[in-house]
Amino acid sequence: MSSDPRAAGWALDPQLDRDTTAIGDMALCRVLLSKDANYPWLILVPRRRGAVEIIDLRASEQAQLMTEIADASIALKAVTGCDKLNVAAIGNVVAQLHVHVIARTRGDAAWPRPVWNAAPPRDYEAAARNQLTAALLQRLALTPI
Amino acid sequence: MSSDPRAAGWALDPQLDRDTTAIGDMALCRVLLSKDANYPWLILVPRRRGAVEIIDLRASEQAQLMTEIADASIALKAVTGCDKLNVAAIGNVVAQLHVHVIARTRGDAAWPRPVWNAAPPRDYEAAARNQLTAALLQRLALTPI
Repeated sequence: MSSDPRAAGWALDPQLDRDTTAIGDMALCRVLLSKDANYPWLILVPRRRGAVEIIDLRASEQAQLMTEIADASIALKAVTGCDKLNVAAIGNVVAQLHVHVIARTRGDAAWPRPVWNAAPPRDYEAAARNQLTAALLQRLALTPI
Repeated sequence: MSSDPRAAGWALDPQLDRDTTAIGDMALCRVLLSKDANYPWLILVPRRRGAVEIIDLRASEQAQLMTEIADASIALKAVTGCDKLNVAAIGNVVAQLHVHVIARTRGDAAWPRPVWNAAPPRDYEAAARNQLTAALLQRLALTPI
């Protein structure tokens, strides 16, 4: 995946950087954990300069993105025991292509609505975030950044 | 794609049926047009009995789903000239796996927020809906239902 010339010079969008903690790299995507403790919430960012839409990726990269969405989904569901996964590429505010993979639980801060603009963000306690990150790292084969 | 035993006995969820007009079938998914005229809005429903999450599909079906999301995205963008595509599998209310592919335009009824719970739905005029459906059918190779 790293032979694509659009991998060179890729940099994470500053707002995504502010709102998340990076936990490692898949073959295509950087994996971020949202700082909002209301929902265990991963964000996958394909490391491809200029990609805004899924269809800006090559077909092989789109397939890889789906594989990585599935891997992240399986890990997040196993670690959290959530009732539902929400998977979304929205990007109306932050243009850089990114895919949300969110663990939803009946009765969570936004349930059953989608999470956006639904509840004020809540900070993690450091121990809880570290425990979640460690559990995810145990299930996902990530390259350290 | 139709050899999967979970294709037999599949039926569209009644709420999805009420909220949309079916426009045809891709190899894996039924393609629906939302009745909400605020945004040109397709919904792809894999014809697989019992599928709730993307990860309930086999890996080959997940790859096919991504191909169909891309095909729908390209057609919807070409037909609408939208500013952004929103792609999402939420399913907190309707459990049957379905993927939204929504054409967003700066200044539309919800912009820049995601569309859910953002603006009251608006009915299409029949002529506008027929024109949109015809333009989509011209670009998507769909099997009539």
